[in-house]
Order: sequence, then C-alpha cells, then structure tokens
Amino acid sequence: MSYKVLIINGPNLNLLGKREPHIYGSQTLDDINLALVAKSSELGLRCECYQSNSEGEIVSRIHEAMGNTDYIIINAGAYTHTSVAIRDALLGVAIPFVEVHLSNVHARETFRHQSYLSDKALAVICGLGAYGYEAALSFIAKK
Amino acid sequence: MSYKVLIINGPNLNLLGKREPHIYGSQTLDDINLALVAKSSELGLRCECYQSNSEGEIVSRIHEAMGNTDYIIINAGAYTHTSVAIRDALLGVAIPFVEVHLSNVHARETFRHQSYLSDKALAVICGLGAYGYEAALSFIAKK
Amino acid sequence: MSYKVLIINGPNLNLLGKREPHIYGSQTLDDINLALVAKSSELGLRCECYQSNSEGEIVSRIHEAMGNTDYIIINAGAYTHTSVAIRDALLGVAIPFVEVHLSNVHARETFRHQSYLSDKALAVICGLGAYGYEAALSFIAKK
Amino acid sequence: MSYKVLIINGPNLNLLGKREPHIYGSQTLDDINLALVAKSSELGLRCECYQSNSEGEIVSRIHEAMGNTDYIIINAGAYTHTSVAIRDALLGVAIPFVEVHLSNVHARETFRHQSYLSDKALAVICGLGAYGYEAALSFIAKK
Amino acid sequence: MSYKVLIINGPNLNLLGKREPHIYGSQTLDDINLALVAKSSELGLRCECYQSNSEGEIVSRIHEAMGNTDYIIINAGAYTHTSVAIRDALLGVAIPFVEVHLSNVHARETFRHQSYLSDKALAVICGLGAYGYEAALSFIAKK
Amino acid sequence: MSYKVLIINGPNLNLLGKREPHIYGSQTLDDINLALVAKSSELGLRCECYQSNSEGEIVSRIHEAMGNTDYIIINAGAYTHTSVAIRDALLGVAIPFVEVHLSNVHARETFRHQSYLSDKALAVICGLGAYGYEAALSFIAKK
Amino acid sequence: MSYKVLIINGPNLNLLGKREPHIYGSQTLDDINLALVAKSSELGLRCECYQSNSEGEIVSRIHEAMGNTDYIIINAGAYTHTSVAIRDALLGVAIPFVEVHLSNVHARETFRHQSYLSDKALAVICGLGAYGYEAALSFIAKK
Amino acid sequence: MSYKVLIINGPNLNLLGKREPHIYGSQTLDDINLALVAKSSELGLRCECYQSNSEGEIVSRIHEAMGNTDYIIINAGAYTHTSVAIRDALLGVAIPFVEVHLSNVHARETFRHQSYLSDKALAVICGLGAYGYEAALSFIAKK
Amino acid sequence: MSYKVLIINGPNLNLLGKREPHIYGSQTLDDINLALVAKSSELGLRCECYQSNSEGEIVSRIHEAMGNTDYIIINAGAYTHTSVAIRDALLGVAIPFVEVHLSNVHARETFRHQSYLSDKALAVICGLGAYGYEAALSFIAKK
Amino acid sequence: MSYKVLIINGPNLNLLGKREPHIYGSQTLDDINLALVAKSSELGLRCECYQSNSEGEIVSRIHEAMGNTDYIIINAGAYTHTSVAIRDALLGVAIPFVEVHLSNVHARETFRHQSYLSDKALAVICGLGAYGYEAALSFIAKK
Amino acid sequence: MSYKVLIINGPNLNLLGKREPHIYGSQTLDDINLALVAKSSELGLRCECYQSNSEGEIVSRIHEAMGNTDYIIINAGAYTHTSVAIRDALLGVAIPFVEVHLSNVHARETFRHQSYLSDKALAVICGLGAYGYEAALSFIAKK
Amino acid sequence: MSYKVLIINGPNLNLLGKREPHIYGSQTLDDINLALVAKSSELGLRCECYQSNSEGEIVSRIHEAMGNTDYIIINAGAYTHTSVAIRDALLGVAIPFVEVHLSNVHARETFRHQSYLSDKALAVICGLGAYGYEAALSFIAKK
Repeated sequence: MSYKVLIINGPNLNLLGKREPHIYGSQTLDDINLALVAKSSELGLRCECYQSNSEGEIVSRIHEAMGNTDYIIINAGAYTHTSVAIRDALLGVAIPFVEVHLSNVHARETFRHQSYLSDKALAVICGLGAYGYEAALSFIAKK
Repeated sequence: MSYKVLIINGPNLNLLGKREPHIYGSQTLDDINLALVAKSSELGLRCECYQSNSEGEIVSRIHEAMGNTDYIIINAGAYTHTSVAIRDALLGVAIPFVEVHLSNVHARETFRHQSYLSDKALAVICGLGAYGYEAALSFIAKK
Repeated sequence: MSYKVLIINGPNLNLLGKREPHIYGSQTLDDINLALVAKSSELGLRCECYQSNSEGEIVSRIHEAMGNTDYIIINAGAYTHTSVAIRDALLGVAIPFVEVHLSNVHARETFRHQSYLSDKALAVICGLGAYGYEAALSFIAKK
Repeated sequence: MSYKVLIINGPNLNLLGKREPHIYGSQTLDDINLALVAKSSELGLRCECYQSNSEGEIVSRIHEAMGNTDYIIINAGAYTHTSVAIRDALLGVAIPFVEVHLSNVHARETFRHQSYLSDKALAVICGLGAYGYEAALSFIAKK
Repeated sequence: MSYKVLIINGPNLNLLGKREPHIYGSQTLDDINLALVAKSSELGLRCECYQSNSEGEIVSRIHEAMGNTDYIIINAGAYTHTSVAIRDALLGVAIPFVEVHLSNVHARETFRHQSYLSDKALAVICGLGAYGYEAALSFIAKK
Repeated sequence: MSYKVLIINGPNLNLLGKREPHIYGSQTLDDINLALVAKSSELGLRCECYQSNSEGEIVSRIHEAMGNTDYIIINAGAYTHTSVAIRDALLGVAIPFVEVHLSNVHARETFRHQSYLSDKALAVICGLGAYGYEAALSFIAKK
Repeated sequence: MSYKVLIINGPNLNLLGKREPHIYGSQTLDDINLALVAKSSELGLRCECYQSNSEGEIVSRIHEAMGNTDYIIINAGAYTHTSVAIRDALLGVAIPFVEVHLSNVHARETFRHQSYLSDKALAVICGLGAYGYEAALSFIAKK
Repeated sequence: MSYKVLIINGPNLNLLGKREPHIYGSQTLDDINLALVAKSSELGLRCECYQSNSEGEIVSRIHEAMGNTDYIIINAGAYTHTSVAIRDALLGVAIPFVEVHLSNVHARETFRHQSYLSDKALAVICGLGAYGYEAALSFIAKK
Repeated sequence: MSYKVLIINGPNLNLLGKREPHIYGSQTLDDINLALVAKSSELGLRCECYQSNSEGEIVSRIHEAMGNTDYIIINAGAYTHTSVAIRDALLGVAIPFVEVHLSNVHARETFRHQSYLSDKALAVICGLGAYGYEAALSFIAKK
Repeated sequence: MSYKVLIINGPNLNLLGKREPHIYGSQTLDDINLALVAKSSELGLRCECYQSNSEGEIVSRIHEAMGNTDYIIINAGAYTHTSVAIRDALLGVAIPFVEVHLSNVHARETFRHQSYLSDKALAVICGLGAYGYEAALSFIAKK
Repeated sequence: MSYKVLIINGPNLNLLGKREPHIYGSQTLDDINLALVAKSSELGLRCECYQSNSEGEIVSRIHEAMGNTDYIIINAGAYTHTSVAIRDALLGVAIPFVEVHLSNVHARETFRHQSYLSDKALAVICGLGAYGYEAALSFIAKK
Repeated sequence: MSYKVLIINGPNLNLLGKREPHIYGSQTLDDINLALVAKSSELGLRCECYQSNSEGEIVSRIHEAMGNTDYIIINAGAYTHTSVAIRDALLGVAIPFVEVHLSNVHARETFRHQSYLSDKALAVICGLGAYGYEAALSFIAKK
C-alpha cells in the first residue's frame, strides 16, 4: 500500500497569498495544498495537509499521526526557532520528517538561522517557495 | 471616519489587580479596558480590547484585524521575549503597532530585556503602568 | 484540613509509556497519576492531576489554582526551556512549586540545561523517573 | 506647592530640527521646550529645560538639582549608551527620573539597545518623538 | 545480599547546623547521617557516610569504593562546580551515582548552575534539604 | 534559448561513492553528473558539471561563468564553512545560485552549521542526497 | 571655490612629540598642522585644524562645521573606541569624513580594534604616522 | 627633595558625604583632602588634590602633571569603567599611579568590575573607604 | 579585649623570597609574618598567620576560626581564581575578610582577573607587595 | 639602489572593473598596476605586481620574495579574513608589509572586520580605492 | 609486509631552516625528511614525505593515499586552524593519522589553539621540534 | 653528571590498568613507572616517579624539586583543566616541563581542551598512551 505523508504548516502560513507577497508569493495555502494532494497521488503517495497557529495543537496533531503516518513534511514557521515541544513531539512519535521553509531563512534575521528541528530532520529545504513541499514529496517517493 | 485601534494583552495580564500588586498595581484589566474605551472616544478613536493566554490565539486575533484595524497597541507579556510567531503575525498583517509594558522591564530579569517586537514597533513604552496604554492612544491620535 | 497539591504535566507527557521508552519507561501517565493519587492520600494530601500540550492552557490552569491550591508539582516538559509565560503564571499566583523531570535533563541536549522555572522553584528533581513526583509529594508532606 | 521637573537633553539634541529630520522630525529643541513649559503649567508642574553636549556638565547640572527638583526627565542621547557617570549622578542625587528617546532605539544599531540608565529609571519611553517628553510629564503629574 | 551505598559529603558540609541555617537548616551532618543509616536498613540497604573538605581525599575515597559499593550518593558541595577530578574518579570506578544538593542551587549564584557531575549522574536532586538524601536512597531501593 | 546551469562540486566530492557511504551513498560523482545532464535536457536546461579540490580554482571557474551562465548550483563541501573567496566570486559575477549539500549538515559538527554562502543563495537544500541537485534543477526550470 | 577641510584631533594628541615617541614619533601637533596647511593649499584645498581633550567640545566643533565644511579628517584618539556622541555628531551634520590613526591600532590592545566611527567613514587609515593625514587630504583632493 | 603626589578624584566624588552615605560614608571630599595633605607631610611627601566631573579636564590635568609630579593617586569614579582617554593620558605622561576606589567595586554591578586603568596601575585598592588614599600614600612613601 | 585577626596565605606563597623575585620581592613569608605580628600589636590587634598549599586544609583552617576570630586577611593565591570551597568556608563562618594580593593581578593573565572572593570581601588590595597585609591590618584597626 | 616593492592582489581582484563597480570602481587591475608602476618610478621605487586566486600560490609567491624584496603591499581580498597561511608566509620571510583594501571593510559584513594580517602590518589602509596602493607606496618612499 | 606511512607537511614548512629559526630550528625540511626515511626503515616502516603550500593539493594527495597507506603523520601548519577540507579528506580516506606541530602552538596566538584535526587524530604532538615526527613514527611502529 | 627528571602523575592515574581500559589501556602505573626508570637509565637520565590525588600535595612535591631537578614530565590529569596552583608551582620553581596525556584530550569533553599548563610547557603530547612519557624522556635526552 502507498505511503501516508502528513504535511504540517505552522503559524501565519494561513496568511499565504495575503502576507508579504514579495517574500512568500501569491498562492494561498489552499492552492498549495490542492497541488500537493495532486502531486502526491501522481507519486503514489497519500497526503494530508494540516495548519495551525497553535504550538499545542501542532504537538497534538503530531501525536495523532502515530501509527498511521509514514513521513511528515513540516514547515513550522516561527515555531521552528522557538519550539522544543514540537521537536519533542516529532521525536516522540518517531516518524521521519523533512523540514521545509518557503523563504531562505538564512537571508533573514539572525534568530531565524537557528532551528530546533533541523538536526533531527531527514533533510532541510529552504527558499524554493511552494516547490519545496513538492521536492520533499518527490524525495520521499524516491526512498 | 475615526481610526480603529486594537489593544492586545497577552498571558497573565488577566491576573491584573490580583497578581504582584507591588509591581502591577491594583486595577483589574477590565477597569483598565473601560478607561481606555472612554479615553479613545475622547480622542476620536474607536478601540477594542482583547486578552488571551494563548500564543496561537493572539496570532489568530491579529490575523482577524487585517483590513479593519489601523493600529495595534500590544502588551504581549511573557510572549514579548519568546514569540517569533506574534512578531510574524504583526508583520504579516502590516498594521503599525506600539509596544507597551506596565512595569519597567529593564529593571527585571535579563531575559526580559530582549523583545521580538521592539525593532518593528513604532514606539516602546514601559514602566508607566496603565497610563502607558493611554499614552499610546494619545500618540496615535496625534499622528 | 489536608493540603491540596496540583500536579501539572506539560507537552508530550501524554505520550508516556508509548514514547522513547528507553528514556521514559513504560508506565502511562494515567498509571502514574493513579499511583500519585494513592500516594497522596497515604501522605495526608489531596492531589489533582492535569496535563496539556498547550502553553496557554497550562497558564490558565495555574490561574485557576489561585486560592484553592497549596503546592504545585510541575513537569513542564519542553516548556521548561522556552516558556516565560508559565514562569509568570507561577509567580503570579504565588503558589510554591517543585520542578520535576523524569529523565536527567543534564545528560541531554544543551538547551535542556536551561530552565525558566528552576530559580523560582522550592526544589528541582530530575532523573528519578516517575518516582520523582512521589518524592516531591513526600517532601511537601514533610513541610 | 507644585512639583519641580528638570528636563535634560544630552549631546546632539541641540541639532533637533536640523539633523536627520526623517528620524527626529523638524521641530527645534527650543520649540519643544516652549511646548513643554506650557504643558507643565497646564499639568500643575514647574519645569526647567537644560541641554549640553558635555558629559561632565550634565553630571554637574544633575548635582545642582539636589534639594530643589522632584523629578528628572532625561534624554541622554548618545551618553545613554556610554555614560556610567550620568547614571552615578542620578543615583547620587536620588531624584526619580524618566528616560525618554525621540526615536525607537531598538530599531537602530545594536549598541543603542543597551542603556546605563534604564534599570534605574521609573519608566522608559522611546519612539514617540517629542510627545514622549509630554507623556513623561503627564505620568509625573498623575503620581 | 543487600546493596551497599556510599554517601559522600564534600567541603563545608561538616558545618551543617552551624552554617547559614536560613539556607541549610539546623540539623548537623551527624544527625543527618544517623537518620540515613536508619532509613537505609529500613529500605534493605547498607549505607556508609563519608565527609571531607579535601578534593584529593574524596577522589581517594571513591577509589576505595571500587568493588565493594553498588551506588554512591554524592553532595560534592563547592567541588560540584570546580572538580573534574571527582568526576573522573566516579567515572573511573564506574559506580552509578545520584547527585544531591541541600539547597536549590539554581536560585543561587550563576557559577553554581554548572556541575561537572550532573551529566554523568543517574539523577540530580536539589532543594529538598536533608530529605534529598533519603529520596535518593528510596530511588536506589526501588531499582 | 535554454538556460545554462553550472553545477560546481567542491573538495572531497570526487570521493563520492568511495567515501563514508553511510553518509553519502554509493553513487560516484560521475554517475550523478550523467544523471544531471540527462535531467537537465529533460527540463529544457543545458548543464555543465565541474569539480575541484582547490578553493582558488573554484573561484576562477566561477569567474569564467560570467556572461555565459544563468544559474549556478554549488555544493562547496568544506569550503562552504571557510571560504569568503568563493562567496566573493559568486557575488562578483552576480549569477544567482542554489546551495546544495548531500547530507544534512545540521545533524553534523557545529562548524558545519555556518555557511558563507547561504545568506546570498536563492535557496538551500541539504540532506536530500544526490536528489538535491535534481530538485535544484527543477526549481530553476520552474522559474 | 576650493573645498574646506576640517582636521580634528582628539584627546592626548596635544602631547604629540612629547608622549611615547617610540609609538607616535617626535613631531609636535603644531608641526604636523603647519605641514598640513601647506599641503592643503598645494592640493587646492583650504584646511583648518582643531584639537580638544573634551568629547563635548569635539561634538560642538563638529556642529559648527555644518554648512561651511566639505570634509572632515578625524583622529578621535581614545574617543574612537568609546564615543557614540561623536559618531552622532558626524552623522548629524552629514559631512563625509576620513578616520585617521597615527599608530596601527590593530597591533595594540583589543579594545582599540573597535571603532564607533569606521562603519560610517569614507575611509580608514592607520599606522602611516603623520603621513596619514596627508594621504587623507590627497584622497579628498582626488575626488 | 620630597616626592610630589597628585591625587585625582573623578565624577560625582564632589558629592561625597552627601551621596549614598551607606556606601561612601559621611566625610566630604574636602575633609578627606585636608586629612591627606596632613598625612602627606607626615610621610615626607607633598600632595595636591584635584577633582573634576569632566573626562576632558581630567585628561588635561594629567598632562599638566608632566615634569612636576612623581606619583598619581587616582579614583576615576565612573570614568574607570569607560575612559580610554584617561588611560592614554596616564600612559602618555608616564607617571606611575595607584588606582583607588572607596567602595568594593567587585560587590557592585558587573560593569564596575572592568577597569581601563588597573592593568597599568602600580596597585589597586578598593573598599577601604577614605583610608584607601592614605594607604596609597604610605605605599608611595615606602618605595 | 583586642580583636583577633587570622592571616591566611594560600598555595605557593611559602616560596616567597625564592620564587619570581621580580614579581614578588625577596622577603620570605616568615619575614613578612614576623613583621605583621609586630605591626598587629602596635595596632592593638592580635594576629595569627597560616599557610597551606591545600585547598581542603585552608577550608578546615577557616572552620576552626569560627568563634575565636574577628577578621580574616586572605591571600588565597591561585585558589582565588578557582576555589568555590574557600568562598563557601568564608561565608559559612561569617567572619568579615580582606582579600590581599602581592602583585597587581590585573596586569597578569586574564584568568587572574576573576576572583571567587572579591564580591564577598570587605576590601580588595593588590599590587602593594607585603605592605598590602599591613594596610589591611591598619584598615581593620581603624574600624 | 632603489627599494623593491611587491604588490600582491588576492582572489577576485582580477575582476576589478567588471565586478560590483558601485563598490570597487571601473578601473581594471591592469589599469591600476600600470599606474602603480609609473608612480613607483616617480617615487624612486621599483615595483612588481602579482595577482592570484589561490591561497597556496600567494604563499609561494611571498616565499620567492625572500632576499629580493624590501616591502610588500598586500590586498589579500577574502583571504584577509580566513588565511593563517598567508600571515605565516609574511612572518616567515620577514618582509615588512602594508595592508590595503579598496573598499571600507568596516562598512561591510561583520566577518570582514577581522583580519589575520593587520596586527603584523606596518599600516592598514581601507576605503581609499585604488589610491590606497599609491598612498602605501608614498609612505614606503618616505621611510 | 611493512606498514606504509605518509608524512605530510603543509604551508610554509618548506621554509624550515630559513624561517624564524628561534621558533623552528635550523634544520631544513629536506634534512628532516632524510632523517625520517632513515628512522622509518630502522623501525621497519616505509615512509614517504610530501609538502605543499596548497590546501587543494594536500586534499588531493590524501585521496591518493587511499588503499596504499596505513598511517598518515600530518603537520598541516596554518591549515590546521582553517581547513575543514583537509579534515574531510582524512575522514574520507579513513586512514588513521597523528597530528604533529614543531612549536608549542599553545604558547602562541589564540587562533592557533584551535585545530580542525585534533579531535579525529590518534594523537597530537607539539613542541618537540623535528623529533615530534620521529616520536610519531615510533608510536606507529609500536602499535 | 646525568640530568634528573621528575615524572608527576595527578589524580586518578593510580587507577591505571583498572579504569576505563578502552581509553587508558591495561598497564598499571607501577608497570609504566618501572619501564620509565629503565628507559631513563638507557637514555642517561635519572628519573623519579610521583603520583598524588591531591592538588596541594602535587604543589608541594613540585616545590621540593627546586634545586635538585632538571626537568619535569607532568600528566596532571583532571587538574590540567582546573589548577592554577600547579601552574604557579611550576612557574615558581622555574623547572622546564613537558605536559603528557595518555588519551587524546581533544577527542573528549570540551572542558578537557583547555589546559592551565600548555602555554608554559616546552611541549605537549597527548594520545600516545604510556609511550608519551617515553617520548618526553627521549626529547629531554636529545636536548
């Protein structure tokens, strides 16, 4: 049976398409998610998309993935830099994950250069825009 | 038409009047909010007050302000020092804001000297107690 | 009348028994809580157990303890290292508390060596596993 | 009898209205001082304004305030970040003071984020422009 | 046969009961040791108590434990923060140990927050006063 | 006409397939390059591959690209962390570039977390193995 | 008409020729100034020389240059490393300046490696002795 | 002929006897100076006392000592921690000096633990109150 | 009755007169002690001198002073920079002390600029050579 | 006989005139070198110009200068900030050198503020553009 | 068959005997190499000597050793402190190596105290002069 | 007459052969010492071996060497990283010394990378096991 992938987007990513388009482009998160679902079935994967502005809800959503999910693709947004809880959730459920950022975080403020997820991720992709999620899916499909 | 101002109070500020009165005074948050609503109409502004202990809810409340709010006055409490998500929400909606603290944060623990909001704020006011919100309103009214 | 103790567990501790058993053992949080309730009445204490993955909810739960709780035992999990809001809630309600960690945090990643709670705690216990909560209860009972 | 307030402006503030108007506005220091004297009597306060480019002269002026001044409002300009002597003078005469900056110092160079005065000030106001002095006067009048 | 536990107290702990009672209580070290011997046999353990002000003597005492001791409980006092030699002795003899401090070291000077022992300890207990040793014994008895 | 892409591999990448296969896989650099040339024409791009162990030669190769190359994909290997000269060369020729690493550098030594290229790159990809180059090509093809 | 250049020397430079000749040479400041005036007219520039040991006086002298001076050459001596006020004065009057030091400050104490002026200077010259001022004049003449 | 000693007191020391008496005692600077002149002739030394709140004036006063003074005793007050100019003046005139502080600076704020003078002083005395100057005189007399 | 003063010298000070005479002079420790005993009775004090190379012995000697000693003068030598145990012993017995160093420690290696004793000392004297002990005695006699 | 000067330019300086002209001007390196040769003979010096992008080649070129070169003028470009090898080569051949940068490195990225050459240079010149080399030649000619 | 040892010397070591003889002695590298070849056969080892000033060439030479060399002895000179590429080459070919320095690097500049090779070396020898290579050979012969 | 060498081993080295054999090998310290005495006479040196777990005793033993010892070989074990007193003793007696460590300290915990002895040693050897002492003896014999 095909692999199940959970795609998690963190705080403020629901603003996509409305927020700072010079950095994040004009696609909405729904646009992106639709395209990713299509791409997934093309790659023989099943995918589910989730977004929340709440650190605690993201932690709980990761817990629910235990036992029914093969890979997580996560763009934790601002929580990337501040959340040990999300790191612990990912380690707790022991589901391999890929970290994605739309913009090149290394070209922004210094505090965005530090991530609580990167050292435990399979891979880290940043600056590819929405294509970053797609590249993560393709990478998973290849494994 | 008059400007709309959203006043946001972060975690533990619902304890005002009950909590550490030697630092924060004995007025409750409701007392303060009532006075600010009165002051606002005196200044020809419309104001709405919001409080939450949840980082994610504050992020979402800021999103809702997009398109209907001219200024934000924010006392993010403890999240001032730890929340990149609130910073991103404020930048995402692109509403100018004033940062207010009741106590003089510079006279307290070192970790309170760092703020994720200050460099993006119009102005920063601390140590004026509840009068700080009023000064922020007057400043906005003058602009 | 007997003292009331609130035992708070933070994010990911609901995974206990399922998550990284080589670090945290195989008891579930319910198992532990049942044993702690039993131990409490044995010690002449009343105890209530609470868990949440949400920083804001833990802050609010601490507020509710004001006026009806004599001691808090808190394992804030990942929030230990990142939450000024929980620190402020504990200081705001002015209930003395004991900080407990199941594993020896000093033997793990560097960022786990820093705690926003320890300098305000009565005591800090780590590495005793679930017995740590019990030791905290006994310590409170002795006072 | 009414309270006496001394308003001190440090180095380069005599350039106001001429210097970097995009940061500091076009009012001269004399304009501002006149307005503050008017505002003071409106608030039932007496106020005196002083400016110097010399650290030593500011120290001496603070000494002269001993015994005849109830509050100091100080915008120490560049000396904010480098002068222990002015800090010591303010502590030596034991007159409570409010620290004011015209621009938002947190949005400028890193060395402007550190102040030798803030931890001893009643309050710190920055980014309100010339209205900052007025807010400080109102705050003093309320006490 | 029952487990053998060595309880080591480092420099200045011989002053207990005489020294800074507001921090350390009024029990002498002999009082504590007597109680611990009693508690040990109650728990089915054999225990021996040792104190020295000399780093070198503590190192040598740990060496003597090799082959005849199952667990060490150590309150290395000031040497906690400065002695690599005691760390090396504990690792050299490979006897598992619990680190105990009477006071909450995290609430004291910054240099007391660093320990050369903690990352190699089974567990770390601080702030429980003399009950900390007892909790360590109970923990060992449970294993 | 189709875009020209230069793919640069830095020191030790000629060992690919022979060196630390648990980290870098068993494909040789020639295998990878062949696949990338194929992929490029599939994507309507022209690509050329270059490898050198010498910082100076890489600098010179980048200079030669001036005026005949539209994008650079660079895995500078160890020079990522130490070479300001390669950064300057890339900025000097002003050709947009994508930074690629085979392994997840964030999971390795601390000095590998710092890059002289990332803040000037369009995007940064690490941990995808040889697929990382392909994802970079696809990203370029989409632009 | 010819350009006007103001040459400012800071604290202790009046000791030149008397002070630490192994570092600063045996020419007095008057000798140097005479030569610079001569050199200036040779280059078609007008130049004026100023020295003060007082930070505040240097600030005020820079203010006086506003509107009548095209370039400043400044050797702020010890104030280079400690004076934000002089930096602010130079930025306030917006006169382009060249920073000169007689000795090679990089070969002296660490605190002399940091300058509050360099990042805003046109150029920085150190270690050329009195010829440094002349080189600065020639550079200005060439522009 | 007898040695000539110059005793320099820096900013705020003119407040002695009026300022923070719990730290600095109730003697005025004039009282202290009178006693030091008496003590000097008792020790066969000639002494002169100088005080200024201005960094630049202290620098100039040190210059004037060149050629007519054998030793300097200096309490630079706040300038101890911020003035490279005074350090340079003392090195420039090459008169050996003793650094004196009335209070124990090591028991005060961290920024007072750093001195620009100490590494070039003959000796450093702090916490002896006004007796510190006397001890410095006796030390000089013994040499 | 007269005050009792204990003078403690730490490691390597038994080498005095033999060791690095260009730094420490040619007097032996016995010479110095004899002179200090004489000076003490001249000042109406009783004094006892102690030296040890062992940290633990110095700790124990301080303990013995409890109840029979009014002041301690301590030159802890190298232990100044490394011994928390001696700091704790001095705080434990609560005997006020003066810290003395023969050489100017601020003019030597950086690690000698940090002291575990200074912030708890009455006063700190360094660089006066053996006269430093005498100055400390005189200071005590004056109190 | 006249002095021989070797002028070394490091990586990317061969791009001069083509690369980032807003920073480096439009003269090519050949233009500059021709002018320097002319200037040298005018000053009675012989000069030779060398450029390489390779750290190792620059090291070897410096070795070749041993015994036939009196001064080196070096603009090591990016290697200024990363090459201990070039520092060692310059110290090894013991030829005095002047460090030159075309742009003001202090106004650029932080990592450009550190130089492995400056503390060993006779002088450091930056921000004078190509005139910097000429000033270095004039300085050498004056010696 | 006997073990093969490759001895690599990095930049500037070709200057041996000519360069800073007070630090490195008067033997040339050829003298040393001859002696090491002789010593090797005496120890039953085969040895080959290589020197280069180029980081990239050293990397390539290490690659060539793969499959034909049992041990490497490397004095990477300045590259010790700056080259991740050489570290990666040594790890890539997985040949055990001993790090040698002629002088005691710990007694020189701070940046020489850090090595990119030491934590992966079998052993590190510094300060023994040319005998250091010989000691490394003997150590290898003993294994 | 032959040179006298004192070989000092610090804390925990008496455990050799019993302690962590995967790091330190199975030879006891007595085995090693016997071999070193034999090797010494072979090299025409006289050697004496000393071990202590006490910092103070090692200091005193070094003092006793004054006047009767030509070289010291010291493996100060854990005291390497914490003892200024042993550094001072070695400098006090002015006997040249070689620092030896059995294991490669650079491959162990970060705090073992810092040594209070290395910058004053003739040479530093680590990771050669017991052969390190022998290499030090040979080096001394060669001088």
